[in-house]
Amino acid sequence: MDKQTVKVGLMGLGTVGTGVVRLIEGHQEDLRKQTGCNIVIEKILVQDKGKERNVSVPPEKLTDNPRDILHHKDIDVVIEVIGGIEAARTYVTEALLNEKHVVTANKDLMALHGVELLHVAEEQGCDLLYEASVAGGIPIIRTLVEGFASDRITKVVGIVNGTTNYILSKMSQEGATFAAVLKEAQQLGYAEADPTADVAGLDAARKMAILGTLAFRMNVSLEDVDVAGISSVTPEDIEYAKQLGYEMKLVGIAEDDDGTIDISVQPTMIPQEHPLASVNGVFNAVYVYGEAVGETMFYGPGAGELPTATAVVSDLVNVVKNMRLGVNGRGTVAPYREKRVKTAEQRYAKYFLRLHVADRAGVLAKITQLFAAHDISLEKVLQVPHNGGHEAEIVIVTHSASKDGFERVVEQMQQLDVVHDVKSSYRVEGSD
Amino acid sequence: MDKQTVKVGLMGLGTVGTGVVRLIEGHQEDLRKQTGCNIVIEKILVQDKGKERNVSVPPEKLTDNPRDILHHKDIDVVIEVIGGIEAARTYVTEALLNEKHVVTANKDLMALHGVELLHVAEEQGCDLLYEASVAGGIPIIRTLVEGFASDRITKVVGIVNGTTNYILSKMSQEGATFAAVLKEAQQLGYAEADPTADVAGLDAARKMAILGTLAFRMNVSLEDVDVAGISSVTPEDIEYAKQLGYEMKLVGIAEDDDGTIDISVQPTMIPQEHPLASVNGVFNAVYVYGEAVGETMFYGPGAGELPTATAVVSDLVNVVKNMRLGVNGRGTVAPYREKRVKTAEQRYAKYFLRLHVADRAGVLAKITQLFAAHDISLEKVLQVPHNGGHEAEIVIVTHSASKDGFERVVEQMQQLDVVHDVKSSYRVEGSD
Repeated sequence: MDKQTVKVGLMGLGTVGTGVVRLIEGHQEDLRKQTGCNIVIEKILVQDKGKERNVSVPPEKLTDNPRDILHHKDIDVVIEVIGGIEAARTYVTEALLNEKHVVTANKDLMALHGVELLHVAEEQGCDLLYEASVAGGIPIIRTLVEGFASDRITKVVGIVNGTTNYILSKMSQEGATFAAVLKEAQQLGYAEADPTADVAGLDAARKMAILGTLAFRMNVSLEDVDVAGISSVTPEDIEYAKQLGYEMKLVGIAEDDDGTIDISVQPTMIPQEHPLASVNGVFNAVYVYGEAVGETMFYGPGAGELPTATAVVSDLVNVVKNMRLGVNGRGTVAPYREKRVKTAEQRYAKYFLRLHVADRAGVLAKITQLFAAHDISLEKVLQVPHNGGHEAEIVIVTHSASKDGFERVVEQMQQLDVVHDVKSSYRVEGSD
Repeated sequence: MDKQTVKVGLMGLGTVGTGVVRLIEGHQEDLRKQTGCNIVIEKILVQDKGKERNVSVPPEKLTDNPRDILHHKDIDVVIEVIGGIEAARTYVTEALLNEKHVVTANKDLMALHGVELLHVAEEQGCDLLYEASVAGGIPIIRTLVEGFASDRITKVVGIVNGTTNYILSKMSQEGATFAAVLKEAQQLGYAEADPTADVAGLDAARKMAILGTLAFRMNVSLEDVDVAGISSVTPEDIEYAKQLGYEMKLVGIAEDDDGTIDISVQPTMIPQEHPLASVNGVFNAVYVYGEAVGETMFYGPGAGELPTATAVVSDLVNVVKNMRLGVNGRGTVAPYREKRVKTAEQRYAKYFLRLHVADRAGVLAKITQLFAAHDISLEKVLQVPHNGGHEAEIVIVTHSASKDGFERVVEQMQQLDVVHDVKSSYRVEGSD
């Protein structure tokens, strides 16, 4: 390529799009030194051309017609930051079919249609890069694919959703309820008006599907991820977690147990000495365990205008370097390992359980017998008076147990007349 | 390239070399899937062919003659893990001149001769990769060069020497003296018989020169790094640090203040809430601040057979991918910013000072006046009785002050007859 100028079509001028414009404009000289080209934003797709913006853009660059980018003969690279799934999928596909390279920040798109789109990109000799789709400013995708190319990754634990980490951190620091902190987070702009995708764990699940695919080199889909959200977490649960030496975090846990994988997202008690336990607020972090490298962790801002734009523009630099070398679309390694996913019987973890029972002789024995009958041994058992002595509260942490077995114990426990209420249960991170 | 097999010459079969053999042998199938080639270790340079090894290698692969690798017509890639400077420099240069790509784990070599060797590599159309030279298993070089390609990095703070981090962590946890913990570290193999390079901060300084070059895109040399070691750190200093809310760490701090840089290595008080404060034992971590991305941190094992080998073999995968694409030697961006280094007057930091003084009226006033005369304001002042009330101990934390000014205050203080002893002074991390 002997181009002096690479032209970019930017689809979307929301938070991340605005950051992309700022970075490209502000770092022209550095980008030229690194790529040998001028990088110019040629067209920007917006919904409303007349809307006031936080960034100054020549009005003739704005368009509300995607064809002005997708069929523009001089545009080499399309940056997709409109979000959502269907329109983005159509645009990205069309861009690739028109031999334009694509950089996207769209985790929903990549979690659902990544494999298909990467295949189109490869066939077209185009790059499709998506570093910004997981953990914003942390270059975790590059790290998994290149940094650990020589290793076998057996575990990835990620705090990959800033909204829920903010909520749980605040609940932990202030003893506040979920509802109260959610409201505050919405006022501060840390949570959406409809917070479901974040709070129910779906956003984290999409990111874990992407990370699992890269870490285990298997084609992980969203359906392979077992998901639970944080809306039922109470200040009491967090208090108990602390007493037992844990912090409550919404984490995604992806494990490869000798070729069979187990990926889940759920509120989890993380040991206080674990590097993830002190990741607070809107920060993200991804803990990676490799057979050879051992324990590593990557920490940074998970979202925000400029952090996310950093990842997008670093991908753009990569695309432009590849253009100069003539090697676009030839860097990806498609998942090559056959996917096997654990069943509920095969999935093992430690669990926390809290329940209210009748304050009567023999109750604790009945409960612990239920665990014993399912071959689940207990690490910690705590009983305290509750409800003015009319009831007892029992807290149990198990040793490693199958998810299936644990759930059956809880089910049978609910049928005991001495058990008044199973208040909560959580996964506990850590081996026996 | 239509090669089916890439042949590697391994120079050195110590700790890291052994790990490289294990990884390449153990991960054949994964490496083939990722690179499309078989990777074979063809020859291994050792000092003593008869020595017993921790890894089984066919004896005909061993050689004690470097020419058997450097002039072997079928060897495509040379991995240099012999360490040291002069021999390594000769071998790496000769390998490049013979058009062999090079992967090295040698921080000493890269800190002293990196620019020259990278230049030779580029001229020869060869790759010269060195991820393993800094922070072992943490892919920090890739992160700085590619992950943050779009950003302007203004600060890098690194715990990049495992030996000293182990010693300071132990001193902090157990209240033990430097000498006692060093001895223990030597027995455990965490410190060398001659620990000078680690303990005096030189090893960390070399790594900071490499990181500074990459982060600031300037040609930083070892002479630009201001170095102090940890041998004079006492349990009392660590105890005061804790009381004031800090952990004592040997860190490298590299800052770019609008084009003028300041790089140093010294025992430093790190605020307990800083992500680096909880990095303990032999672990390494690198904190990176970018204008756009904000705060990030990368954590992992800094040394060891397999962690370091992971970085070496990931570089090898990169070289082989480049061979298939025909783009070796074309990926590096040479430092392009003019280097400007701060003078002692321009270097600002916060400082901790501990001294023993006569227990007499007006002493504290004299001391604080000295600071005031040099325009240095104080953040914290603490005075306690010492030596059974015959003396007082004074502890001071300054606001941001020039290194030069602070050193002049200390010098003049030593001349006051009321000052019996300036016990210690340290840099304190954090802005005002």
